[in-house]
Amino acid sequence: MKTSTLNNTFVRIRSNKLFEIFVVTVIIFSALLVGAKTYPMSSTMLLVTKFLDWFISGFFLTEVTIRFLAEHKKRDFFKSFWNVFDTVIVVVSLIPADDAELAVIARLVRVFRVLRMISIIPELRILLVSLVKALPQLGYVMLLMFIIFYIYAAIGSTLFAEINPDLWGHITISLLTLFRVMTFEDWTDVMYETMEVYPLSWVFYLTFIFFTAFAFLNMVIGIVVGVMEQENANARAEKQEEQGEPTLKEIAQQIASLDKQLKELKAKD
Amino acid sequence: MKTSTLNNTFVRIRSNKLFEIFVVTVIIFSALLVGAKTYPMSSTMLLVTKFLDWFISGFFLTEVTIRFLAEHKKRDFFKSFWNVFDTVIVVVSLIPADDAELAVIARLVRVFRVLRMISIIPELRILLVSLVKALPQLGYVMLLMFIIFYIYAAIGSTLFAEINPDLWGHITISLLTLFRVMTFEDWTDVMYETMEVYPLSWVFYLTFIFFTAFAFLNMVIGIVVGVMEQENANARAEKQEEQGEPTLKEIAQQIASLDKQLKELKAKD
Amino acid sequence: MKTSTLNNTFVRIRSNKLFEIFVVTVIIFSALLVGAKTYPMSSTMLLVTKFLDWFISGFFLTEVTIRFLAEHKKRDFFKSFWNVFDTVIVVVSLIPADDAELAVIARLVRVFRVLRMISIIPELRILLVSLVKALPQLGYVMLLMFIIFYIYAAIGSTLFAEINPDLWGHITISLLTLFRVMTFEDWTDVMYETMEVYPLSWVFYLTFIFFTAFAFLNMVIGIVVGVMEQENANARAEKQEEQGEPTLKEIAQQIASLDKQLKELKAKD
Amino acid sequence: MKTSTLNNTFVRIRSNKLFEIFVVTVIIFSALLVGAKTYPMSSTMLLVTKFLDWFISGFFLTEVTIRFLAEHKKRDFFKSFWNVFDTVIVVVSLIPADDAELAVIARLVRVFRVLRMISIIPELRILLVSLVKALPQLGYVMLLMFIIFYIYAAIGSTLFAEINPDLWGHITISLLTLFRVMTFEDWTDVMYETMEVYPLSWVFYLTFIFFTAFAFLNMVIGIVVGVMEQENANARAEKQEEQGEPTLKEIAQQIASLDKQLKELKAKD
Repeated sequence: MKTSTLNNTFVRIRSNKLFEIFVVTVIIFSALLVGAKTYPMSSTMLLVTKFLDWFISGFFLTEVTIRFLAEHKKRDFFKSFWNVFDTVIVVVSLIPADDAELAVIARLVRVFRVLRMISIIPELRILLVSLVKALPQLGYVMLLMFIIFYIYAAIGSTLFAEINPDLWGHITISLLTLFRVMTFEDWTDVMYETMEVYPLSWVFYLTFIFFTAFAFLNMVIGIVVGVMEQENANARAEKQEEQGEPTLKEIAQQIASLDKQLKELKAKD
Repeated sequence: MKTSTLNNTFVRIRSNKLFEIFVVTVIIFSALLVGAKTYPMSSTMLLVTKFLDWFISGFFLTEVTIRFLAEHKKRDFFKSFWNVFDTVIVVVSLIPADDAELAVIARLVRVFRVLRMISIIPELRILLVSLVKALPQLGYVMLLMFIIFYIYAAIGSTLFAEINPDLWGHITISLLTLFRVMTFEDWTDVMYETMEVYPLSWVFYLTFIFFTAFAFLNMVIGIVVGVMEQENANARAEKQEEQGEPTLKEIAQQIASLDKQLKELKAKD
Repeated sequence: MKTSTLNNTFVRIRSNKLFEIFVVTVIIFSALLVGAKTYPMSSTMLLVTKFLDWFISGFFLTEVTIRFLAEHKKRDFFKSFWNVFDTVIVVVSLIPADDAELAVIARLVRVFRVLRMISIIPELRILLVSLVKALPQLGYVMLLMFIIFYIYAAIGSTLFAEINPDLWGHITISLLTLFRVMTFEDWTDVMYETMEVYPLSWVFYLTFIFFTAFAFLNMVIGIVVGVMEQENANARAEKQEEQGEPTLKEIAQQIASLDKQLKELKAKD
Repeated sequence: MKTSTLNNTFVRIRSNKLFEIFVVTVIIFSALLVGAKTYPMSSTMLLVTKFLDWFISGFFLTEVTIRFLAEHKKRDFFKSFWNVFDTVIVVVSLIPADDAELAVIARLVRVFRVLRMISIIPELRILLVSLVKALPQLGYVMLLMFIIFYIYAAIGSTLFAEINPDLWGHITISLLTLFRVMTFEDWTDVMYETMEVYPLSWVFYLTFIFFTAFAFLNMVIGIVVGVMEQENANARAEKQEEQGEPTLKEIAQQIASLDKQLKELKAKD
């Protein structure tokens, strides 16, 4: 009986509007703290931030514990991706970081607490889920793009490796250089350098830009068409459900039945 | 009685086509004057522009006063955003600026008189209103984008602050650097610098570019879909209103009524 | 009588398929000649190109004259924009250019003969006409964009003129600098320079980029929506014309007439 | 009899799921090998890669041979573009490359074996075919764009050749420079250089950017509209096929027939 009462208390706390606002406030505050730490601070301020840090860690731990205890079936808690996400972030940021070596890592982990902003705001969660869902649709276009990149990187590192090993030394660095060319970032510097040895190497760059631009365009169109199709499907489904409109076929059948009756009437006469 | 006659005079002036054209001419002229002032001028010219400036200020004051007096309920005048907008611009540009310190500020204020071009041309007003209306739709995507920026800026200023304090010194400057990376402006220079210390830091830049590009794409698609939905809704509403078309449901009911009558007729026989 | 026969001959020549192909060949050849002239040439080659040039000029003159003479009402000839276009290009390229001063201008004029490619290929003409037609739709967005540019250029040349007169000296050069910023071309170099004097001047650049990007996006969406509306309108018009489908209203009227007849029948009984 | 049995064996091998997976594995492995070769290797490793290379060449030859033998009509084998594609890649990579001169070429040829990834994955093949099919639609826009490029390159090399022969020396290099300007890559450096001689040459660059951006926009819209039209056509065709809906015309005819019968009935009475 007592555990059930406790459980109810936790559920009440979790669903409390004020508690929710307080959680969001603490998350925003922890984000600001992460930002503040990048500025130089006096030793007093360092102490204050350290204290605040422990308070936030403690609060997040309490909050996740309450949410866990409020769950009726404990096992279901970890079935939700966002619960696992929150728990991992909270647990990882509990690791003590007084060690100089670990200090940088500890600070980085605290940065990821800002990600809790996404898990706490439902609209952001939906947005992220829909972004992730759109990815596999693009799978084959991205594979095609990778093949284009790979072939050009292999050609580039075969021909240009000796001209500039920093840019074309091996296939990994060549892939990075090609990504740079795709973003048009000082791509002519890269090209003019190789054109001094191979005057026709502009063909390499121009065809690469053409192919990737084309594949990219295709990707964008793919997304747009996908979105539009879904919109149209939604619109159609809505229309049929809401209005309960009969189809033209049903109307034609109604008229056929009238026709039959009229014929019977005429026969009768 | 007399105030009413005066009032009518003001209303007549305000609605006068010639007066409107004259107002637009003065606004364009004031814009040109703002541009002309950026060129070096002889002292005679300076005097002329000073005189013109006072004439424009006086004219704008008169014009806003006429519009205010032509309003029947004086309180309603300030309910319109554009009236408030015009009044603020006119009043602020009346501040004398003979002081050397204030001279620059005074010149800047006069620049904003060009904005009256927007308040005077209805099409531009509509355009601006629709632009502003489109913003909140994008609210959550922009929040998500800001979170991505914030996390990367925090990581960047934690790891790279000592490599280049000008770019990664604290979180504000890191946000600016990331915006630069997003515009692909010499982003490889930034990357190559950090890759010398952390050879794997290209992961940082590439994932950042990927995430922001993806969120940006989502934003654009969001706007396009929003615009299209509105277009479709308008088209549908127009169709129904203009043509007064019956729905298929109404036709089915008409036929059902025919059917009933036929059945009665048959029963009669 | 004789002139009429001559006229017919000209009409026959103009409509001749072989003649058309020959005209296109000469235009392409004249384009290649323009390109070839940018390479260094021996004096023999120079003589050859000079001769070819006179041949092309003569041929174009003949061709336009034939088209003019083939026109029944001579006045109508100049009513077509493309006829005027061709005539101007042909006449202008007849100006002799032996003078050293005029040589460059004469060569430039010959470049515009390449534009005849557009006037001779109907598909390109249609494309260009539709491009030009799309412009006025964008009128107000472009005006808004110009106002944004103008205000920022006025602010820029007021505040930054002394920092770098080459970039911000007066309003014209400031407009060019802002266009550069809009294309993201080394825009951080421009920004970092002014940030040394006004540390907050990044606000100037970021708001400018934001406003122009937003207005530009609006412009693109405007075009897309415009194109789509036209497509939909075309599709609807086509559907109604081709199939001769009755409207739902007409069907409802047909049924109402049935209803009336049934009622009369019942009354009779 | 015996050849037919052999043939069946080949068909069985070709259709075997395991064999397919093995082929894909070898292709991916050959791609990785191409990448690995761009890294410096010990002589032992060089020997190993040489052996692996011969194994892959041998395997690909066997695989294409099996596919060829499994074909019932040998002539049909070369009617499929992808079979020809595979055969050419396999045969070319058989050329021995011990010669130092040919070594680079031989390595490049091996790179193209990665392209077999496209021929083996049906989805990528479909994607590529649809990309290639979309090209001719854009034919005229691309021709227009080329004319714009050509005219500007001719003007550029006429006026600017002496300012910077590396950028504007002749028409080919000018075309490359203009492509650079279109990608906004350090375009202001190019412009500032010519503005020192011709202060108004910014008109040249700005109009060029405007024209190409406009033509490019038109191209993108052309693709989008094309894709959308096809989508709509598909949707309509699907609707008509699946539901077997009667047209409004047919319904109107049904009602007219009812009307006729009613009239007869009334006449009878």
